[in-house]
Amino acid sequence: MDVSARNPSLREILATNLRKLRNERRWSQEDLAAEVGLHRTYVGSVERAERNISVDNIERLGVALGVEPWQLLRRAQGS
Amino acid sequence: MDVSARNPSLREILATNLRKLRNERRWSQEDLAAEVGLHRTYVGSVERAERNISVDNIERLGVALGVEPWQLLRRAQGS
Repeated sequence: MDVSARNPSLREILATNLRKLRNERRWSQEDLAAEVGLHRTYVGSVERAERNISVDNIERLGVALGVEPWQLLRRAQGS
Repeated sequence: MDVSARNPSLREILATNLRKLRNERRWSQEDLAAEVGLHRTYVGSVERAERNISVDNIERLGVALGVEPWQLLRRAQGS
């Protein structure tokens, strides 16, 4: 099912935003993982909305990407 | 140390917002816990910034309180 056809879960919103911000920086999952101090497979699982990530790790991802953590959980306009 | 004197952690921002929204609704921790399907002591620990809550439970809290989940993680202006 196309995610855009229904309300995405918060995990899915985070996954979309994370991948978008990472790609904008031309970082690999490994690059981001190294910045955050997490494993590449962990970042991959968050980007696939498979992982029930914690608030502390959401904060770390925001810091690494230079955005406010809440921005990672906000659905992009028009998406 | 006064939290307002430094940058609060994301846990602390969530704790402050959660308590504020719950009090505005005149809900006890037990009321909110029942809405969300969590235990009262869990809600208490989140409001004391003791718990590394997951994204799925942040989503549940937002739904119960009628706000977008990202709003729970955004620092209130002037606070």
